Amino acid sequence: MAAVALLVPALAAAAGPGVPVVRFLAILAGMLAAAKLAGEAFERLGQAPVLGELVMGILLGGSMLGVIPTGAADPLTPVVALLAEVGVVVLLFEIGLATDLKSMVRVGGAASAVAVVGVTVPFALGALYWMSPLHSEQPGQADLATTAVFVGATLTATSVGITARVLSDLNCLRTVEARLIVGAAVIDDVLGLVILGVVTGLASGAAISVLGVARLLAVAVGFLVAAVAVGLALAPRVFRAIERMRVRGVLLVSAFAFLLLLATLADQVGSALIIGAFAAGIILAGTNQAAVIREQMKPVADIFVPIFFLNIGAAVDLRLLNPAKPGNAPLLAIAGVLLLLAVVGKLAAGWAVPWRTFNRWAVGVGMAPRGEVGLIFAGLGLTTGILSRDLYSAILVMVIGTTLVAPPLLGWALRRGGSTPDSA
Amino acid sequence: MAAVALLVPALAAAAGPGVPVVRFLAILAGMLAAAKLAGEAFERLGQAPVLGELVMGILLGGSMLGVIPTGAADPLTPVVALLAEVGVVVLLFEIGLATDLKSMVRVGGAASAVAVVGVTVPFALGALYWMSPLHSEQPGQADLATTAVFVGATLTATSVGITARVLSDLNCLRTVEARLIVGAAVIDDVLGLVILGVVTGLASGAAISVLGVARLLAVAVGFLVAAVAVGLALAPRVFRAIERMRVRGVLLVSAFAFLLLLATLADQVGSALIIGAFAAGIILAGTNQAAVIREQMKPVADIFVPIFFLNIGAAVDLRLLNPAKPGNAPLLAIAGVLLLLAVVGKLAAGWAVPWRTFNRWAVGVGMAPRGEVGLIFAGLGLTTGILSRDLYSAILVMVIGTTLVAPPLLGWALRRGGSTPDSA
Repeated sequence: MAAVALLVPALAAAAGPGVPVVRFLAILAGMLAAAKLAGEAFERLGQAPVLGELVMGILLGGSMLGVIPTGAADPLTPVVALLAEVGVVVLLFEIGLATDLKSMVRVGGAASAVAVVGVTVPFALGALYWMSPLHSEQPGQADLATTAVFVGATLTATSVGITARVLSDLNCLRTVEARLIVGAAVIDDVLGLVILGVVTGLASGAAISVLGVARLLAVAVGFLVAAVAVGLALAPRVFRAIERMRVRGVLLVSAFAFLLLLATLADQVGSALIIGAFAAGIILAGTNQAAVIREQMKPVADIFVPIFFLNIGAAVDLRLLNPAKPGNAPLLAIAGVLLLLAVVGKLAAGWAVPWRTFNRWAVGVGMAPRGEVGLIFAGLGLTTGILSRDLYSAILVMVIGTTLVAPPLLGWALRRGGSTPDSA
Repeated sequence: MAAVALLVPALAAAAGPGVPVVRFLAILAGMLAAAKLAGEAFERLGQAPVLGELVMGILLGGSMLGVIPTGAADPLTPVVALLAEVGVVVLLFEIGLATDLKSMVRVGGAASAVAVVGVTVPFALGALYWMSPLHSEQPGQADLATTAVFVGATLTATSVGITARVLSDLNCLRTVEARLIVGAAVIDDVLGLVILGVVTGLASGAAISVLGVARLLAVAVGFLVAAVAVGLALAPRVFRAIERMRVRGVLLVSAFAFLLLLATLADQVGSALIIGAFAAGIILAGTNQAAVIREQMKPVADIFVPIFFLNIGAAVDLRLLNPAKPGNAPLLAIAGVLLLLAVVGKLAAGWAVPWRTFNRWAVGVGMAPRGEVGLIFAGLGLTTGILSRDLYSAILVMVIGTTLVAPPLLGWALRRGGSTPDSA
């Protein structure tokens, strides 16, 4: 029987001793159930559910319970990692699908100013902090400038989801402050994705030079603009034809295949997978089928996206964060400084629009929560070895910290300074 | 940088050179897009879309285009195989979710008789054919009796989907013939799953003995009955609590985790993964949340299930089916005999209820299409080496053949013998 099994590697691999099917299904079940339980617990505590998934990932990861496969020798490690990759492209596709291109253009001026200041100041603070004499190049690691760019990049993007959620909870969505924060947070994500394009280039070994950064910036922006322009012209016609097809699930599967194809295309032209996925979302948001696609993509995202956040958490070495252990002090100090820079850097965004009056503290604090995009940067940095595991863990502490401090700070700022009703 | 990457195997594996993320996403996109195109083409030709997916799998497989990874050295082979496993458990979960336990009990008598005859006669014909002096044990292969049981098993289960679809196309759903065929096809699937439990036991090396088969039968039936009984008592309460949870996607993810858990539990007690998944579906069909779960599970199934059928097709070696090549004659002869036995065996089911009058030819022919369950048997047999690749290919030809001949034969039988309107 063994001899025959060797002749049929395709299916044999599935049920053979090499790939434990049952263990895979059990791990998948455990990860997803735990993610939802943790998300629910955080939701009830007034925190973002995504934080619950991250924390659960840390608990289930290699340094604690070891449920999520992270070892190089475990055949399921690459499988879970690939599902996490599907999760992150589906997540960015959903964000794109929810992005209203027209209203983004309309909010224009003020929100753009808030976004640009809110991206550049934290980036500069983070990068300069890492370039300071406090840090030095380690043997076998990336050069200091590259790491500094990564550290700065993880500080840039506000998390739309967490921000909007907090404003909704405080019943402040129809205020000037809310429109500025949410508008800027969306532009933020796009800027963050452009930075990701640059940073991905760096990660693949490109040296930092003005010309090089300009070229990478041009590729990232160019791909996004070109893909959206061509896509908006063609996709409505293509998806009208697909809608007329009769076979079950054809609309959803076509949208899914489209997002995967655009993601791989983005990678092929030197941009990033998630920029392609985001572009696919913006393109399909312009079709008549957008509402149905959004509805049907939700369950798919519900399955895949938590795997991404769990896997992000699983890569954290919890032992490094134990304050009782003396060797961990430097790491915790770095995490504290990054958290401070993250909040202070976004506060500056409140003063980016001097020609209008509103609660500047509320806008600044409201931009503070970091989320998905920052985690993507951190993951990429860890994968490519540009961020050490220590620094990666410090950045995750920063991301988690911003989402923990923002809700109480925003509540305080709004109670103290009030809000400005939006006439529009 | 390489040194650091070695410290972080979890994420490094995702983007590292070992696991090609971009290639994986591209293959996934190509597989799904091709599956839907083929499904649509077959649908328009009046055939079952699942056949299109199978045929596309053969085309994309290792013996033709090589798009679907099937080589033992390809790191994506086990990944696609595991996704196919998720696909098959989701498929069986959906079938369970669509099964109305009460009406199955109500149709009772007549449909059960049709089902039992329609399962035992083809099984006996297939097994006896393989035990006949025409075939002999090959060195390095399973003993003839085990293979014969597998061959018989692949002939048992009628495909509910294809059958119901043909009846609906012929506008004959409200006839005695239709109620008998559909009712018996559902019972068929359950009997098929019980047989699968037995056959899985055989595949894992248990010898054939009356006592052994009885024990395996008891485990399979016992697990199904016990799981459904306990589940029906507990699940409504648990899922009412889950419905009150607030975090996004919690109902769907809980249902998904539940089906995976029950599948692994079934495996642990010595039954089969898909019996657990089927039981999970029947259990959740009894909750107040069944409609929502059914609706939200659809997109998830739309993504995963085609991967299963594509992978089934990809394992077929097309070169073995070329009639021009003289060495292929025996294989094609076997396929022809199996197809004949498959149709004749199910025809017998029409005469299983002598105490009622109806179009016996229509019922017999209507039970002929084989589908998912037969393919699962075939895949399992190939994986474990009990079926040679030749025999596996012949069985796939039989499955495809039954679905191709059934629609025209059923149309002919109904035009010739008429149908009996159902008063209920």
